[in-house]
Amino acid sequence: MNPTIELLNSHRSIRKFKDQKIPRDLFETIIRAGQSAATSSHVQAYSIIHVVNPENRAKLVELTGGQTYVADSSDFLVFCADMKRPTEAAERAGAEVVRGMMEQLLVASVDTALMAQNIAVAAESEQLGICYIGGIRNHPADVSEILRLPEHVYPVFGMCLGYPDQNPEVKPRLPLASILKEDYYQDEQDLAQIGAFDDTMRTYYLERTGGNKETNWSEQLKPLFTSKLRPHMSSFLKARGFEMK
Amino acid sequence: MNPTIELLNSHRSIRKFKDQKIPRDLFETIIRAGQSAATSSHVQAYSIIHVVNPENRAKLVELTGGQTYVADSSDFLVFCADMKRPTEAAERAGAEVVRGMMEQLLVASVDTALMAQNIAVAAESEQLGICYIGGIRNHPADVSEILRLPEHVYPVFGMCLGYPDQNPEVKPRLPLASILKEDYYQDEQDLAQIGAFDDTMRTYYLERTGGNKETNWSEQLKPLFTSKLRPHMSSFLKARGFEMK
Repeated sequence: MNPTIELLNSHRSIRKFKDQKIPRDLFETIIRAGQSAATSSHVQAYSIIHVVNPENRAKLVELTGGQTYVADSSDFLVFCADMKRPTEAAERAGAEVVRGMMEQLLVASVDTALMAQNIAVAAESEQLGICYIGGIRNHPADVSEILRLPEHVYPVFGMCLGYPDQNPEVKPRLPLASILKEDYYQDEQDLAQIGAFDDTMRTYYLERTGGNKETNWSEQLKPLFTSKLRPHMSSFLKARGFEMK
Repeated sequence: MNPTIELLNSHRSIRKFKDQKIPRDLFETIIRAGQSAATSSHVQAYSIIHVVNPENRAKLVELTGGQTYVADSSDFLVFCADMKRPTEAAERAGAEVVRGMMEQLLVASVDTALMAQNIAVAAESEQLGICYIGGIRNHPADVSEILRLPEHVYPVFGMCLGYPDQNPEVKPRLPLASILKEDYYQDEQDLAQIGAFDDTMRTYYLERTGGNKETNWSEQLKPLFTSKLRPHMSSFLKARGFEMK
């Protein structure tokens, strides 16, 4: 296994950071590595807001549900799907632009995620730690106001970056056979595989908590799907010009 | 710059592959590296269909608009956002599950993209070439039928993997200052930066084509936005249980 693949396999989220800043030139190197990711039709439908202002970072801690590392990490980024820049560029070149298509929302969201993952890998290759912050979608309208996001731009997720001050274990993943299927979607084996994975996760949680947390993968998923998680997302996106037509 | 960042910066899509198969153990190593990517609340809302059957690959060439490398690459993957597995796991654990939320579509699409980008990086770290195939969304209902995708699973994009039989240049990206903004979304400088980038791309296209292709970034974007690209995506997703509630 080569060092890059070893690096990928060693990923775990870091939620406690040293009080040490990432040098600006390294920070820019990492962002540029993000830009090198594939982008649909070269559209590059993303913007990153680098939140430096301490008051805004404190507000974002609140808006993401009290995740203090949003303020305590060296750098906090909000990754935005951005259909404003490319559609306006096409418009200036003379196109009569159609906006609000579902396809555009997908393209921009996927472009943003590919770029962010390259940033995660680049950061970790420099012994930095990262944590994605999906909680940025808890209150996306407030986040958009703080960051002054215009129409056709929406915050997909955040990311903390910094020097790790903890060394958590790598979290197990589903068996390869569950997620990789040959030729057709087959899930006859899923039940047995998920049962085995539930056992794996049960052991993982017990060992990590000295026997105090007895749960498993399926149990952990329950609160995600029993309630309408982030039920505002559909109306929020429509209000921002992502009409899902 | 470390070797991993150099690798990320060297990415370009490969569309011509040698007639050489990726060994199975390396293939599995690459997929596992994909699974190591961050996943929202550990949900792992993705499945990969590894299309091996030559007839199906030939059909997918047609359905993606004649991209012959979908058949000619060593391996072709269809990356699917999969909300079936996690919601059913939660259901078996006793949850009354809510489906069809916009948030779930986003979580699954982003999870899928993060995983795919790790696969791209892992593959390239082994001197393989890759090409994302967004054309899988040209006819997503037909693709879903061929791959027998159930409800709550949709094909986000494809990916060709194999040993490169071409060595294209790295394509320029927007200036860092266009996509990286401090504290607020500011685009006062965008017009000048995009003008400069249009010049960069004009030179790039001229040099690559011996003077035959005179265009730029903004011009290239026009056809993407003047027509309703993939106008079926919204109704397709709804029909597959992604109701965007």
